[in-house]
Amino acid sequence: MESCLEAIAQQLTQSDQILIISHKNPDGDTLGSAGGLFYALKQLGKQAAIICSDPIPKRFLYLFEEAQQFVLDFKPQLIVSVDVADVTLLGPKTQEFANQIDICIDHHKSNGVIAKQSYIEVEAAATCEIIYLLLKQMSVQIDRKIANCLYTGICTDTGCFKFSNTTPRTHRIAAALFESGCEYEQINRRLFDIKSMEYMMVKRDALEHLEFYYDKRVALIVISQALLQKIQVDVAELDGISAIPRQIEGVDIGIILKERPEGGYKVSIRTGATVDASELCKQLGGGGHARAAGCAIDADLETTKNKLLKVIQPIFQE
Amino acid sequence: MESCLEAIAQQLTQSDQILIISHKNPDGDTLGSAGGLFYALKQLGKQAAIICSDPIPKRFLYLFEEAQQFVLDFKPQLIVSVDVADVTLLGPKTQEFANQIDICIDHHKSNGVIAKQSYIEVEAAATCEIIYLLLKQMSVQIDRKIANCLYTGICTDTGCFKFSNTTPRTHRIAAALFESGCEYEQINRRLFDIKSMEYMMVKRDALEHLEFYYDKRVALIVISQALLQKIQVDVAELDGISAIPRQIEGVDIGIILKERPEGGYKVSIRTGATVDASELCKQLGGGGHARAAGCAIDADLETTKNKLLKVIQPIFQE
Repeated sequence: MESCLEAIAQQLTQSDQILIISHKNPDGDTLGSAGGLFYALKQLGKQAAIICSDPIPKRFLYLFEEAQQFVLDFKPQLIVSVDVADVTLLGPKTQEFANQIDICIDHHKSNGVIAKQSYIEVEAAATCEIIYLLLKQMSVQIDRKIANCLYTGICTDTGCFKFSNTTPRTHRIAAALFESGCEYEQINRRLFDIKSMEYMMVKRDALEHLEFYYDKRVALIVISQALLQKIQVDVAELDGISAIPRQIEGVDIGIILKERPEGGYKVSIRTGATVDASELCKQLGGGGHARAAGCAIDADLETTKNKLLKVIQPIFQE
Repeated sequence: MESCLEAIAQQLTQSDQILIISHKNPDGDTLGSAGGLFYALKQLGKQAAIICSDPIPKRFLYLFEEAQQFVLDFKPQLIVSVDVADVTLLGPKTQEFANQIDICIDHHKSNGVIAKQSYIEVEAAATCEIIYLLLKQMSVQIDRKIANCLYTGICTDTGCFKFSNTTPRTHRIAAALFESGCEYEQINRRLFDIKSMEYMMVKRDALEHLEFYYDKRVALIVISQALLQKIQVDVAELDGISAIPRQIEGVDIGIILKERPEGGYKVSIRTGATVDASELCKQLGGGGHARAAGCAIDADLETTKNKLLKVIQPIFQE
């Protein structure tokens, strides 16, 4: 049922045992939302716990200093999912709650969670923005810990206020979180500046093997299984590598070929405004968005490249 | 003379021919400040021009669509310097105005410009923040062009809201600029995502020759003259390369050795909280800040490295 934030605030205020559920492969927004809500509920003297199917990534551990957040030693009276777009994103540890979610708070357009009360605001840059508004409704005092959680979700989901989902409200909430003592400098350094040694090694390899086609309007990077097995890099960090080809000035189509363990290649294509990536990938049995799409090609490297370049060729033929 | 923003606003409102001066090697803040003020003065029906000793870098050309901003075809009644910390930063084309500056608007602590009226606010993350407040005083309607200029200065000087100089006010001004139609998505992509081919080539070379010392707590990169002559990379972009060694997880000291055309090396040292970079550089005849310092070493590469490692050694000896 679609619900308003006031009703959800009231429901939370009236409950004493609350379980918060994050999505699997947790990111800054689901963890920041869960942490922010957790600390708020504790401030109000309630029992609360967070549950997530996957371990908390090392880079987000600073949100949970005491690690008591993940101990469920009570029978939940209310179950709240945060930033969970669909029950398929719950994962094995939280699957059992799929049909028992009381409150669903999210900002994904495609939300498919069935809950007694749902608050989905697609215009929110991050679920943490909604949690901020909710906590204000609940008259929670936003302290340093809560501010750090909510800022983390907002800055990760907006690429530190760079992406188009950022709104005036996003900036105004950030201002308020600063005033609540949010440690934004350390958080930003940790999330955006520091790279693992493994990431740098994969990046070096990627740049060494950067290839250009069609008058340097297409850039291609290959990430081999041999490399991934030699260097154990975090999946979240690999995303940064995928952005490289399209970052180069003048490149319209950036391609990343990631070799699969079973052979063949996972292809990611990122394009500028003039090329539809999903159209290209559709021709190879894949799909996606206009600016970012993907497909899989069951072939060796040379064949894979040739198939791709053949599909791309018409674009540069005029 | 220290002056208040109201007085400066009044002075500008009462003048009809205004010359705006940016500092040499112009960055986003000096150009954004100049552009924002220029468009505001034109909106008020005044004659205005901007003068800068160096050409506008390609990456900031979007601020000046018509390029009429740089035509000085009137006798200035009022001369305003923006983001100019010292007269030594004027450069040959604007040096003649060094003793004629009427109004100096800046946010540098060390401001040494002599002007009839000065407004220096060190807490401002960018001079563009001050210009925003000034334009509000002048009852200027912040339109898209002005918003793009002011946002550019703010996001370049704060690393897109990442650095410690960002304040609640910075975020609130950004919110207001969004509401004035600022094209933040394109601006951020242009300023933070797109890299030149040359930059990627230098980065590749730097990563290829990354060296580690003292249990990987020291990382070192060499940028040779041979490379810089082969690849003509923009100086502003080279700054990004200097950050690489210290970005690596676990690295306390990042060192960049840039070979000078006349031989020898320009050394840049960046450190974490535990090491004082200026102390290290002082021992080699240089200086700087606690986290970023530099020196020059007149020697070949091997000797340069050895001198550096010898100065660093005591830190890791416990």
